[in-house]
Amino acid sequence: MNFDLRTRSLAEFLGSAFLLAAIIGSGIMGERLAGGSVAIALLANMLATGAMLTALILTLSPISGAHFNPVVTLAMAWAGDFAWREAPAYLAAQFAGAFAGVATAHLMCGMRLFFASTHVRHGAAQLWSEAVATFGLLFGTWAGSRFRPAATAYAIGAYITAAYWFTASTSFANPAITLARSASDRFAGIRPPDVLPFMAAQLAGGFAATQLFRRMATATSRVEQRTAQLEPAAVASTHDDG
Amino acid sequence: MNFDLRTRSLAEFLGSAFLLAAIIGSGIMGERLAGGSVAIALLANMLATGAMLTALILTLSPISGAHFNPVVTLAMAWAGDFAWREAPAYLAAQFAGAFAGVATAHLMCGMRLFFASTHVRHGAAQLWSEAVATFGLLFGTWAGSRFRPAATAYAIGAYITAAYWFTASTSFANPAITLARSASDRFAGIRPPDVLPFMAAQLAGGFAATQLFRRMATATSRVEQRTAQLEPAAVASTHDDG
Amino acid sequence: MNFDLRTRSLAEFLGSAFLLAAIIGSGIMGERLAGGSVAIALLANMLATGAMLTALILTLSPISGAHFNPVVTLAMAWAGDFAWREAPAYLAAQFAGAFAGVATAHLMCGMRLFFASTHVRHGAAQLWSEAVATFGLLFGTWAGSRFRPAATAYAIGAYITAAYWFTASTSFANPAITLARSASDRFAGIRPPDVLPFMAAQLAGGFAATQLFRRMATATSRVEQRTAQLEPAAVASTHDDG
Amino acid sequence: MNFDLRTRSLAEFLGSAFLLAAIIGSGIMGERLAGGSVAIALLANMLATGAMLTALILTLSPISGAHFNPVVTLAMAWAGDFAWREAPAYLAAQFAGAFAGVATAHLMCGMRLFFASTHVRHGAAQLWSEAVATFGLLFGTWAGSRFRPAATAYAIGAYITAAYWFTASTSFANPAITLARSASDRFAGIRPPDVLPFMAAQLAGGFAATQLFRRMATATSRVEQRTAQLEPAAVASTHDDG
Repeated sequence: MNFDLRTRSLAEFLGSAFLLAAIIGSGIMGERLAGGSVAIALLANMLATGAMLTALILTLSPISGAHFNPVVTLAMAWAGDFAWREAPAYLAAQFAGAFAGVATAHLMCGMRLFFASTHVRHGAAQLWSEAVATFGLLFGTWAGSRFRPAATAYAIGAYITAAYWFTASTSFANPAITLARSASDRFAGIRPPDVLPFMAAQLAGGFAATQLFRRMATATSRVEQRTAQLEPAAVASTHDDG
Repeated sequence: MNFDLRTRSLAEFLGSAFLLAAIIGSGIMGERLAGGSVAIALLANMLATGAMLTALILTLSPISGAHFNPVVTLAMAWAGDFAWREAPAYLAAQFAGAFAGVATAHLMCGMRLFFASTHVRHGAAQLWSEAVATFGLLFGTWAGSRFRPAATAYAIGAYITAAYWFTASTSFANPAITLARSASDRFAGIRPPDVLPFMAAQLAGGFAATQLFRRMATATSRVEQRTAQLEPAAVASTHDDG
Repeated sequence: MNFDLRTRSLAEFLGSAFLLAAIIGSGIMGERLAGGSVAIALLANMLATGAMLTALILTLSPISGAHFNPVVTLAMAWAGDFAWREAPAYLAAQFAGAFAGVATAHLMCGMRLFFASTHVRHGAAQLWSEAVATFGLLFGTWAGSRFRPAATAYAIGAYITAAYWFTASTSFANPAITLARSASDRFAGIRPPDVLPFMAAQLAGGFAATQLFRRMATATSRVEQRTAQLEPAAVASTHDDG
Repeated sequence: MNFDLRTRSLAEFLGSAFLLAAIIGSGIMGERLAGGSVAIALLANMLATGAMLTALILTLSPISGAHFNPVVTLAMAWAGDFAWREAPAYLAAQFAGAFAGVATAHLMCGMRLFFASTHVRHGAAQLWSEAVATFGLLFGTWAGSRFRPAATAYAIGAYITAAYWFTASTSFANPAITLARSASDRFAGIRPPDVLPFMAAQLAGGFAATQLFRRMATATSRVEQRTAQLEPAAVASTHDDG
């Protein structure tokens, strides 16, 4: 963490904004061009989002750690890897960036800045999808940042690409994204009353993954600990990703 | 192998579960959204599976070696790269994880946990497809883990992405996946009576690749052996992948 | 910069030519084969362009820095990372290469070398799209080249892949590409009167990103500066990308 | 080159066989499943081929250099990077492997081993496409192997992915592939009389790229040469790719 908090928060803002612009913008373009085929619109939406996320983590993780997600920031603070006193700035940047991205996408498509979404997303299957998706995202984030920081951008980008299709909710897996998508009445939207249950499921999945990873990481044999002592570089490079 | 067997088996369980959730879940979503186009459903299924496999190998291989496949575990044990006494725990975790992934996907889609599949997959062309697909998977696993461990996640993910389309069976190439897919009566399913012949073809292809790779690896010139003696790091990093 | 200016300019020419050949050629082929589905044609166009750009940056950045874009060359000269006296050769190579690429693609498709495009692309939404797209491209180029030069090819390729779908203009984001595409009356074309406003929006977005990145990079804490002094290799490898 | 010629030729055989199996197999499957949409069949064909090529170069280049292409072998021998006396074994393995791959794919699809193709591919536009495609392939191979050997698998895989769509011929770019595809009367086939002109165009494009790259590589400034003398590792790792 070599950049000051203001610079790192700005990176979180930019990353969240471009991520939302990609999600909302490609959703609108997909819907416009796909001639009624939801599958083709979702293919475009999935490829654009996964590619953008990979690009953003590669370029911004050296500045801010590339959280772009309140669950990641809170889980890292809870685990002692991130200072609690810096969390409010990160969370504010993530939510503000997400809304800025929605407005940017709407402007690019010639629409007004915000809408109240009417896209219904509720029920046990949807919440289970969000819990599973966020569990996988956080477990991957922890394992990636601990063991292969340079490859985390590819792992997380690939995971979200897959998650678009294997969950019934298309994997929001991020409270800032969820709230901001309630301001877009299109393909990628979510009705405001459905936001809070989504957030709760995301937090539950994310913290379960964090708790499980911590137990697994401390269950290492003595051999592993001895190796770690001989390889301080592996520990030092952990800050590479979020 | 710095983690204890329990932790490594848990990683095999998680990897197998998320892999199956991706295969089954994206198959169901693809079928639901593609409006009757098998090709578009299979494109979604292929991209989700390949991306998930890459993400899982990147993040879990530092813990368990990322086998996720009984053929890989058995081949490595047979070749002396994995302890026979640890094989039962790995195999149990792979099969249990695969069924947990199927149930997870069905729950996400609002369906009951398991079904008996009626998807017929039999005949010589299908078995030849499975033998070829598993031959390529195992040969790539051996060459990758021996020569380029850091890139194996990309090589195996890309291989399975291709294998979805170039084989007539969409490349199960994994006995645990095959058995678990018999419990899903959808796009990705396989009828229970077709499971055992698939497994036999997979084992035959996998062991042929293992045998061929061992012969090729020992046919190196003296120059190569001298180089290997000077580069112990290359040998030490072999555990990176499975 | 170990190659002489003539060799580096030739690399810029080749890169721009293959990039335009990919954009125009895959646009024509997509339109011919997609049977009226704009979404499927754009998927082919996007995947071909993103893949080609990644391949070109990987292979040509060691020679010329892989700018392929007047905005990149001008921004780097403005920021002091590129010699102003070499800019004319780079810009000339980029424009000439772009037109050579258009002609190459037309010849491959059995068409005459150049056409005047009638594809209308104007209005505030289109210009805002170009400004946003070029802002992201330049910010990513700066952050990538400064912090992760070896991964910039993947970051920029993934960004442009996403940008095809999340902007209303499909992200030209490059004045040489914009001018050359006015000579192709097909899927990827742009009407000559729409070229100058596109260029202005691209320059505005690119310079805003350059200015913002410079401020963020100088806002680093003293800890960061001390680290940089200890890691001259990171600075030395900056030339790896453009 | 640490493996004996027999082992390396076997790797060339396996790589050519799996590459052709992917091209032919995914072409047949795409045609069967796409319900008449050539664009969707070609998307599947392109993604399967690009992914397979990346996987094959990653895993086999440490053994044989991963040529899989007579133009690459001949160009490297001509440039002095490969022994002429070993070229016959490589070429024989590439042609034999290509036919083995075609037969493998036909068997997987329940068809007989070989057919005489009736797919017409002739005319100036097709030959110009092959010359351009092979020029780009060889230039990328040279630049990649010289400057970024570890990334060549990704660069070449991405290039061929793009080349499927931006050329009118879908980029055979390989005489062994061209001849073997004349034995498959399906989506990916080529009529026997069209084979020789394709090969001539491929050789012309490939040797033009080789000649150009050699001129550019020798036009380096004295600074570059001094750097090269200080970095023997970069030269030593050149064998990594083909």
